[in-house]
Amino acid sequence: MSTQRIVDSVEPDLKLATQLFESLSRETRQGRGIVRDSYGAGEQAAHDIMRRAAESLGLAIAIDAIGNLMMTLPGRDRGAAAILIGSHLDSVPQGGNFDGAAGVVAGLSVVSALRRAAIEPDCDITVMGIRAEESSWFDISYLGSGGAFGLLDPACLSIKRSDNGQSLESTLLRRGFDPSAIRERRRLLDPAKIRAYLELHIEQGPVLVAENLPAAVVTGIRGCKRFRNARCIGEYGHSGSLERRHRHDAVAATVALLHHLETVWLAQERAGADLVLTSGEFFTDPAMHAPSKVAGETRFVIDIRSQSEATMDAVAVEALRAAERIGADYRVQFDLGATSDSPSAIMDGRLRRALMKQLPQPFEMASGAGHDAAVFAGMGIATGMIFVRNDHGSHNAEEAMAMADFAVGARALLGLLLELPL
Amino acid sequence: MSTQRIVDSVEPDLKLATQLFESLSRETRQGRGIVRDSYGAGEQAAHDIMRRAAESLGLAIAIDAIGNLMMTLPGRDRGAAAILIGSHLDSVPQGGNFDGAAGVVAGLSVVSALRRAAIEPDCDITVMGIRAEESSWFDISYLGSGGAFGLLDPACLSIKRSDNGQSLESTLLRRGFDPSAIRERRRLLDPAKIRAYLELHIEQGPVLVAENLPAAVVTGIRGCKRFRNARCIGEYGHSGSLERRHRHDAVAATVALLHHLETVWLAQERAGADLVLTSGEFFTDPAMHAPSKVAGETRFVIDIRSQSEATMDAVAVEALRAAERIGADYRVQFDLGATSDSPSAIMDGRLRRALMKQLPQPFEMASGAGHDAAVFAGMGIATGMIFVRNDHGSHNAEEAMAMADFAVGARALLGLLLELPL
Repeated sequence: MSTQRIVDSVEPDLKLATQLFESLSRETRQGRGIVRDSYGAGEQAAHDIMRRAAESLGLAIAIDAIGNLMMTLPGRDRGAAAILIGSHLDSVPQGGNFDGAAGVVAGLSVVSALRRAAIEPDCDITVMGIRAEESSWFDISYLGSGGAFGLLDPACLSIKRSDNGQSLESTLLRRGFDPSAIRERRRLLDPAKIRAYLELHIEQGPVLVAENLPAAVVTGIRGCKRFRNARCIGEYGHSGSLERRHRHDAVAATVALLHHLETVWLAQERAGADLVLTSGEFFTDPAMHAPSKVAGETRFVIDIRSQSEATMDAVAVEALRAAERIGADYRVQFDLGATSDSPSAIMDGRLRRALMKQLPQPFEMASGAGHDAAVFAGMGIATGMIFVRNDHGSHNAEEAMAMADFAVGARALLGLLLELPL
Repeated sequence: MSTQRIVDSVEPDLKLATQLFESLSRETRQGRGIVRDSYGAGEQAAHDIMRRAAESLGLAIAIDAIGNLMMTLPGRDRGAAAILIGSHLDSVPQGGNFDGAAGVVAGLSVVSALRRAAIEPDCDITVMGIRAEESSWFDISYLGSGGAFGLLDPACLSIKRSDNGQSLESTLLRRGFDPSAIRERRRLLDPAKIRAYLELHIEQGPVLVAENLPAAVVTGIRGCKRFRNARCIGEYGHSGSLERRHRHDAVAATVALLHHLETVWLAQERAGADLVLTSGEFFTDPAMHAPSKVAGETRFVIDIRSQSEATMDAVAVEALRAAERIGADYRVQFDLGATSDSPSAIMDGRLRRALMKQLPQPFEMASGAGHDAAVFAGMGIATGMIFVRNDHGSHNAEEAMAMADFAVGARALLGLLLELPL
């Protein structure tokens, strides 16, 4: 039976996919947006939904020491390196329903199709519901995938969740997981036992909408260098009485710093560098600020992303230099803190070409956002990614993926599995 | 008996003043700073402290319909126009102990001195504990003094307190006061019955510290034009995926606007204009923002102060123009909202000269901050002000006034009362 004929007769299980998206929306929506908090109730609800579906499909279930959910369709050779299809099940606060979850749902819809068609793969195919990819909750990216490979700095166990102040260690313990896996840098996954890692994800930018295309193959992933906990310390004072020369104005100084970084970004753009620069959090202290006060403190984030490590490094160094200079000018003290870094990553050439063949309208693009796929690629595992068109960007309640576009992506995934020498 | 000899023998009651400052600190401090919330528990505690002291001095107590506290030493002619010595008893959140309260304490210490010396003035001398001068709580300045003259827009009754969302109307009712006085613009004080208004206040800037002087006479008060509820509405999105051309970044746009206003301020300074410009509140939405999100909204304040109404108007107009232009550039919508305005005011020449004679080291200066004195001056009442040296500025927990400096100011007040034809 030729691949084309099999693909024609085997379709991803879109009924299951629709049910899963509906369950996720129903159980993890709070107000307008989705809240699947890392290692919290929202993420757990998503894991429970996926697990129940996998059990219905008769998949073998395993949960690793830090809570990653492995749902396996056994292959003919159980000892052979497996194919992983995964993505994360957490979300940013007030995020959308598809960011992350779409990849796990795609995996289950594809495995369900193989099951229904009674196709037994020659190696295990594992759908992986990955924990805690978003850094909004624990100030570190790729907790689940990085932890699965023993890559995390054990110091991360003391990071406090941004909303409730609970440490990662106590949070893991409360969920019944084992922080010692992180403390001892244990490998929960053996890279040698993974033949390929595949991830379907919504596009988090506007490219596919603008190009009028349902899906794309990803070429590589932009890295991130982030001053997550930057502060400016000045001195509170009366806004009417303080002449400029007597001020220690934290807002004015932070505005000057961010304005300078915008000119740095513009210069990098003119020079042809790949770069995006964002300060997505910026706030004076609500317990201290007032309309009639010069602000004595700000807290803010500087998020630097590029496919080039050198560009990210150059911008970070310039941010530190400018903070020094502007701090002196404004008689305030900047403390940008440490950066949290996610490296850039390139996708496997063979998988890229194979996935391109599966798309009705082949199109390739870089990923501006980070994905767990970057961790697998960093471990030397052959990694491939599919983007699905999504309106209104992501990390917000308005993200919108059409099921018809999801089907194009899931079909490509299924087609790839059927075309690989299974 | 010559004035000099009376002043030599009659001293402000500094023991009482010290006790009052200690009680205020003890009963209204929360953590490091003072919280005397307008029409809240903190302000009420301050009113109660002053009232008890006035009762001990045998003063006549009256509380007007909106809660201003009138503590009167009766004069020989009860029908003659009275002399008012007043200031406010509220504070900004986490403010200092002396801002406002020092003026009421000075009034009581002076009246106590007259009482002890058995000096009967020829007109009533009323110490006035004024309500709600700070705009931090109800987004309007001079609630107490403006309300006493029926000057408030009745619409202010629906203003919500910034911390608890309770309207001014319901707050007044809960304290047992009468919002109809504001609704009907009733005059609770008759300007024709006020011979003079005197206010001692800590200096809220660094001038007297720099000049090494204990006190000063105030020439005039800087006005304020404030965009209290400015907003920028953009669109949340993923910080890594959105190229500049696809962004609606509220933080970047607000930074650009505030940076532009800083250049406007610098230009006005070069042109010799009197101006201070402050954004003391600036925040993204903690329920929506994240390090990996482009910010879809900011809220901020633009506080414009000058002794010149024309300068304030020019800067406000430029802020609106720039918001339009920058909003279009950044594909966001600025809504600066209405301004809340406090006019500038000049002090009475005769009182200025009389107060200058009372200072051991005569010194005059403008007030950068607004004061209730501006309302009395605006009503055509002869108004005089004394500033007392204060370190670390005000509107913060670190404000620091030495009792020796307070004594110089209070002595000047007492000397003026004794020199006036009583």
